[in-house]
Amino acid sequence: MIVQMKRGATREEVDHVVERAKSLGFGVQLNIGTETTVIAILGSDTGKTPSDIFAVLPGVEAVSRIMKPYKLASREFHPQSSLIKINGCEVGGNRLVVMAGPCAVESERQLFDTAATVKKAGGMVLRGGAFKPRTSPFSFQGLEEKGLELLGEARKKYGLLVVTEVLQIEQIEKVAKYADILQVGARNMQNFALLKELSRTDHPILLKRGLAATVTEWLTAADYLLAEGNQRVILCERGIRTFEDSIRFTMDISSIPVIKRFSHLPVLVDPSHATGHAAFVPAVAKAAIAAGADGLLIEIHPKPETALVDGLQSLSFPAFEQLMADLAPIAKAVGRQM
Amino acid sequence: MIVQMKRGATREEVDHVVERAKSLGFGVQLNIGTETTVIAILGSDTGKTPSDIFAVLPGVEAVSRIMKPYKLASREFHPQSSLIKINGCEVGGNRLVVMAGPCAVESERQLFDTAATVKKAGGMVLRGGAFKPRTSPFSFQGLEEKGLELLGEARKKYGLLVVTEVLQIEQIEKVAKYADILQVGARNMQNFALLKELSRTDHPILLKRGLAATVTEWLTAADYLLAEGNQRVILCERGIRTFEDSIRFTMDISSIPVIKRFSHLPVLVDPSHATGHAAFVPAVAKAAIAAGADGLLIEIHPKPETALVDGLQSLSFPAFEQLMADLAPIAKAVGRQM
Amino acid sequence: MIVQMKRGATREEVDHVVERAKSLGFGVQLNIGTETTVIAILGSDTGKTPSDIFAVLPGVEAVSRIMKPYKLASREFHPQSSLIKINGCEVGGNRLVVMAGPCAVESERQLFDTAATVKKAGGMVLRGGAFKPRTSPFSFQGLEEKGLELLGEARKKYGLLVVTEVLQIEQIEKVAKYADILQVGARNMQNFALLKELSRTDHPILLKRGLAATVTEWLTAADYLLAEGNQRVILCERGIRTFEDSIRFTMDISSIPVIKRFSHLPVLVDPSHATGHAAFVPAVAKAAIAAGADGLLIEIHPKPETALVDGLQSLSFPAFEQLMADLAPIAKAVGRQM
Amino acid sequence: MIVQMKRGATREEVDHVVERAKSLGFGVQLNIGTETTVIAILGSDTGKTPSDIFAVLPGVEAVSRIMKPYKLASREFHPQSSLIKINGCEVGGNRLVVMAGPCAVESERQLFDTAATVKKAGGMVLRGGAFKPRTSPFSFQGLEEKGLELLGEARKKYGLLVVTEVLQIEQIEKVAKYADILQVGARNMQNFALLKELSRTDHPILLKRGLAATVTEWLTAADYLLAEGNQRVILCERGIRTFEDSIRFTMDISSIPVIKRFSHLPVLVDPSHATGHAAFVPAVAKAAIAAGADGLLIEIHPKPETALVDGLQSLSFPAFEQLMADLAPIAKAVGRQM
Repeated sequence: MIVQMKRGATREEVDHVVERAKSLGFGVQLNIGTETTVIAILGSDTGKTPSDIFAVLPGVEAVSRIMKPYKLASREFHPQSSLIKINGCEVGGNRLVVMAGPCAVESERQLFDTAATVKKAGGMVLRGGAFKPRTSPFSFQGLEEKGLELLGEARKKYGLLVVTEVLQIEQIEKVAKYADILQVGARNMQNFALLKELSRTDHPILLKRGLAATVTEWLTAADYLLAEGNQRVILCERGIRTFEDSIRFTMDISSIPVIKRFSHLPVLVDPSHATGHAAFVPAVAKAAIAAGADGLLIEIHPKPETALVDGLQSLSFPAFEQLMADLAPIAKAVGRQM
Repeated sequence: MIVQMKRGATREEVDHVVERAKSLGFGVQLNIGTETTVIAILGSDTGKTPSDIFAVLPGVEAVSRIMKPYKLASREFHPQSSLIKINGCEVGGNRLVVMAGPCAVESERQLFDTAATVKKAGGMVLRGGAFKPRTSPFSFQGLEEKGLELLGEARKKYGLLVVTEVLQIEQIEKVAKYADILQVGARNMQNFALLKELSRTDHPILLKRGLAATVTEWLTAADYLLAEGNQRVILCERGIRTFEDSIRFTMDISSIPVIKRFSHLPVLVDPSHATGHAAFVPAVAKAAIAAGADGLLIEIHPKPETALVDGLQSLSFPAFEQLMADLAPIAKAVGRQM
Repeated sequence: MIVQMKRGATREEVDHVVERAKSLGFGVQLNIGTETTVIAILGSDTGKTPSDIFAVLPGVEAVSRIMKPYKLASREFHPQSSLIKINGCEVGGNRLVVMAGPCAVESERQLFDTAATVKKAGGMVLRGGAFKPRTSPFSFQGLEEKGLELLGEARKKYGLLVVTEVLQIEQIEKVAKYADILQVGARNMQNFALLKELSRTDHPILLKRGLAATVTEWLTAADYLLAEGNQRVILCERGIRTFEDSIRFTMDISSIPVIKRFSHLPVLVDPSHATGHAAFVPAVAKAAIAAGADGLLIEIHPKPETALVDGLQSLSFPAFEQLMADLAPIAKAVGRQM
Repeated sequence: MIVQMKRGATREEVDHVVERAKSLGFGVQLNIGTETTVIAILGSDTGKTPSDIFAVLPGVEAVSRIMKPYKLASREFHPQSSLIKINGCEVGGNRLVVMAGPCAVESERQLFDTAATVKKAGGMVLRGGAFKPRTSPFSFQGLEEKGLELLGEARKKYGLLVVTEVLQIEQIEKVAKYADILQVGARNMQNFALLKELSRTDHPILLKRGLAATVTEWLTAADYLLAEGNQRVILCERGIRTFEDSIRFTMDISSIPVIKRFSHLPVLVDPSHATGHAAFVPAVAKAAIAAGADGLLIEIHPKPETALVDGLQSLSFPAFEQLMADLAPIAKAVGRQM
C-alpha cells in the first residue's frame, strides 16, 4: 500500500503512519520528497488490509492499494490454470463446455425435449432453474422441488450433468442431491453467508458475476468459495449494468482476457442474460469463444413464445443447433474444440 | 403494455398477439397505422405481466411497458404517505429521524460511548453492525451474537431504538430479539428468499437500495416485503455505482423526489456509505434533508482512526454533533424538524 | 408515440393532448381503459418530434417513444447494408478492413516503418493522429500539419489509404488533402457543428462512438453526417464508460449485432482504445470479428515503450503480425476474409 | 507515480524503469520487498506525465498515479477560493447566483417576460440558448444570431447579465458581443480546440460537466481554460449518465463537496438538465444549495407546455418564484444568502 501525505504534513503525522504500519507487522519505506512524503507499506498481507486503516490518519492525502484484495483466486497464488473435473467433464480444458437449457423448468415434456436437444448438439450440461429469483413477488417463482426431481430424471435419462441455482443456505443439501454443479446467481454474488456454506460442500460451484461487480470484487467473492476448501470454482460472466439501453445488460467481453491474466479459474459466458434477446445471442456467444472463454451457458426453449420466464432471450432448438455448428470453426480458430 | 408490430407484419401475426392478450384476460385495442400497427394491451395487471410474453411473438418489433411493475409500494395503490410507527418513534412524519452509530460493534465501551452521543445529539436510533458482509473472507466479520447483546444493552441503557442488519434467514429470530428495526443491506436487496421471510415478521424493515438497482427495482423489492403483510417498510438510499471515482458511490439525490412522487414509503439517506469519506458526509447529509428525505443513517465512531471497519467514512463525535446542529435550520427551511 | 394519461385525468385534459397532436399533423387513436386512458399518436414523423411536447401537458403521466429518433441511418430507411467504397477499398463487404498505425505520428521513421508493417500484414488503411485531443493541456498535442504531410507521403509510398482525426471545422480542408477518411473522435460525436460541415464534404467519415453515448444517440449523430448528402459513413465502436476499472473502457460487444439489426452502416471496432492495454487487444479484436464487425482500428508502434501517446495500448509489430494471422481463421469461420 | 514490478522482475527490468525516470528528470526511490519491488517516481511534474510511459516497460505490473493530472484548477495551486467578478456580480461569494431563462430563445415576448421574472425574483443572470446542440439534425436548432440580438436587448432592458452557449470557435466573437458569460456545454467539455480559444478571451466561462466525465477530467478541462490566461472559470454540474432511468441524468450531488475540497473554482448546479423533469427540479435545487453550491442555472418558460425545446424540464414562472422563496432559508442555513 502507498500512503501519500498531504503537503505540509508534520513529522509527527508521518511517524504516526509509520507506527501504525509497524504495529500491524508491515515493513515501511519512506520517500521524503520535496513536496510531499510518500510511505510504502510492504508485506505479503497488505492486499487483505483495508486501506481505510491508513486513510483516516491525520495528514494523509490518499492511499493507493497495489496488491489486489483477492488471493486464492489469483494467478500469482496458483500460476497454472485450474482444470475443473466434474464426473467426466472438464471445465477449463481444451474442449469447450456448453451448458444449455430453459431458464425455468416448466414440465417433464419441456425439460426432456430440451435435454435431448442439448445432448444431440454436443452440450455436456443441462441447465434449468427450479428456484427462480424473480424481481416481482407476483411472478412465477419456479417449480421448486418438483423442478429438481425433473432435472434429476433428465440427468439420468440423457447422460448429462446438471447445473441449477441455489438461492439460500437451506436449499444446498436438497439441490446437491440432484445437481452436479451448484450455481450462485448474480444477485447472490456477495451473499457471503451462502458462499461460505458452499465452500464447505464438495460440489463444484458456478459463480455468476454480480451486475454491478468489478472483476476484482468478483474474484474476491471467489476467494470466499475457495477459503474453506472447495477448489472447484467456475466463473460466469453475464453482463454488467450500464446506461446502454438497447440490450438488457452490457456484456463485458474484456473481462475474459482480464480474468485469464489475473486468475487461474475457468470462465464461461452467459450470452442469454447478457443480452436479454435471442437475436443478439449468437453474435455474443461467438465473440465469447473468440475471446477465450472456456464455454457457454445458454438458454434454450422448445417454444420460446410460450416460455414462462425470459422467453425473449431463449434460443429455439433449431437456432441452438445452428449456433453449435457455427461455433465449431471459431473454437478451432482459437485452438479449442467443441 | 404497448406492442408495436414490425413494418409489414402480417394480419396473422397481429391476430396472434391479440389472441395471446385475450387468453391472458387483457383487453386489446388496435391502431392500424399507415406504416406500422400498434396494439394496446389493457388491464389492471399488465404491470405484473412480463413483456417478454408479447416480445417473443412473430412480427413484434418492440413492447413498451406503461404500468410500473410494483404495486403495493406505489402511491397509486396507497395515496397517503406512510407513517411508520416504531415504539414511540415515527418515520415519515414531520420530525426527521436520525439513526447513527458505528459500522461495526467493536466493544461495550465503543458502543456505549457512541449511544450516549447519539442520544445527546438528538438521534433516536442506534445503528451498529453485528454481522458484517465483507468483500473479502479475510476481513473482520463482526462480533456476531456478542454484538447483538451489546446492542440490546445499549438500547435499554440509553433509551434508543436499535437498527442492525440481518444477513440470512436463520438470523432473523435472533436479531429480532435485540433490534427494533431489521436492516436489509444493499447486497441483499434482491435476496428474495430473505425478503419473503421478513415480510412475515412484524418488525419494521429498513431496505437499502442495491448499488446497481434502479428505483423501480428497489420499489419492486419493497413489494416483496409488503406482500405477506408487513406494512412497516422504510427505504434507504446509499448511493449507486457509476464511473465517478472521487467517491465510493454516487449519491443519487434525485431518487428522493422520485420516490416521494411514485411511492408512499418513507426514505432515509445514508451519506456515509454513499460517499465513503467523512469529509463529504456533512454536505451530502444536508442535501438529503433539503431534498426531502425523512431522515439519515450516519456512521460515527469515538475514534475513526482505529475503527475496524470503514473508519474513513465515520464521523467523529464532535463532527456528528456539529452536523446535527447544522441540520436543524435546514430541516426547518423545508418545514421539518430534527 | 404513446401518451399515457394519469388516473383520473379529465376529459378536457385528454382532448388537449388530442388537439395538440392533430395540430402537428399526427393521427390519433384513443384507448379509454377502465383505469387510465392511453393515446396513440401516429404518423411517420413521430420519431423526430420531442416527446416533451406531450409530456408537459396537464394530466399526462408518461410518454413512450416507439419510433426511433434516427431515420437516415436506420435499416428501415435503407434495408440493404451499405457498402462504402473508398479508392479501391470496400468497407462493409466480405473482406474485413484493418486500419492500423500509431496513436500519434511522431516522425518519418516511425510512420514509414509502421506503414510498411501494415501493408505487409494485409492492412489496407494507415491510421495516425496529427492533431491529438489530449485530456491535459500540458500533454503532447501532435505534430499537426507536419504530421499530415508525413501521412500523405506514407500513403503514396506504401499504397495505403489514410485515416486521421479532424478536431474542428477549420481543419477539414487541410486534413482532407492528406487523408482518405476523416475520423470524428469519441469526444466530438455530438459536436453537431462539425458533423454538419462534414456532411457537406465528399470524404468518407469514420464516426467513433461517444464514451457515454447510447447506440441510439450514435446512430442519430450519424444522421447529421448523412443529412446533407454524404453517404459514406462508417461507425467505430471504442468502448463505453462504466464502473469496471480493470480496463480503460468497457468494450460493448453487443453493439455490433445491435447495429447490424437496426442500421445499414458498417461498423468497425477499436480494441486499443476500448481496453487501453495491449495485453487485452488480441482477445477483444478476435471477439469483434466473431461478433460480425466489418473491420478493426488498431494501434501499433515500432517501440511501444517509447511512444509519446498511449504506448500501453499499442501492439508491437510482431504482436500485430501475430494477431493478423490469428484473425484469418476467425474471419473465415464467420464467412468473411481478411 | 508508483511503479510496481511483477514478482520475479529482473534487476535489469528494475534498472530500466529507474533510468527512464531519471532521463525524464524525476527522482527515484526503490523499495525492494520480499515479494515485489516498488519504485516511487518523485517530482513536481509527475501529474502531467502519462503513466503509460512506465506501464509499457518490461517487468512492470502496474503504475499508480498519486498526483492529480490537473494543476491550475487545483486548490493546492491556488489555496483561496476564487471569486469571479462579472460586471458587478460575484460568483463564489457569499451571495448565491441564480441564472435562469428558457432553454432556447424563441421570441422577444417569451424572452422579455422571462427576463422580467428573473429580475423580479432576484436572479442576476439571464440564460437562453441561441445556438442549440440538438441530438437530431431534424430538431429545432435555435434562432441563432437573431436569438443573440434578443438576449442583448433583454440584457439592457432588464439590467441582467447574459449567459449563453458557444458551440464552435467561429461563434466566439459574435456571442461575446451579446453575452457576459460564455457557456461551454456538456458535449463540448473536451472540445479542446474550443477551450484553448476561449482561454484567450477575457470573457468569463461557464464550463458544464461532460455527461461521462469524472470530476478529475472536468478539472483538467478547466486547466485548458486557465492555461492561456483566462482566470474567470465557473464550473456547472448537470448530472452524469448512469443506469438509473427514472430521470434523464443522475445529479452527482457529492461533486459539490469534492470540488470544494480539490479546487478553488466556484461551482453551480443545473437541476433542470440533471433531472429532465420540472417536478424534480425544486428538490434538487434545494439539495444543491444545502451541499454548498455557489448558485443555480435553472430553466424557466412562460408556458412550458408550448416550449420548442425541453419543455418538460422548465419551471413555470410561479413555480420559479416559489422555488426562489423556498431557497432563501436554506441559503441562510448554510451561511449564504440569495
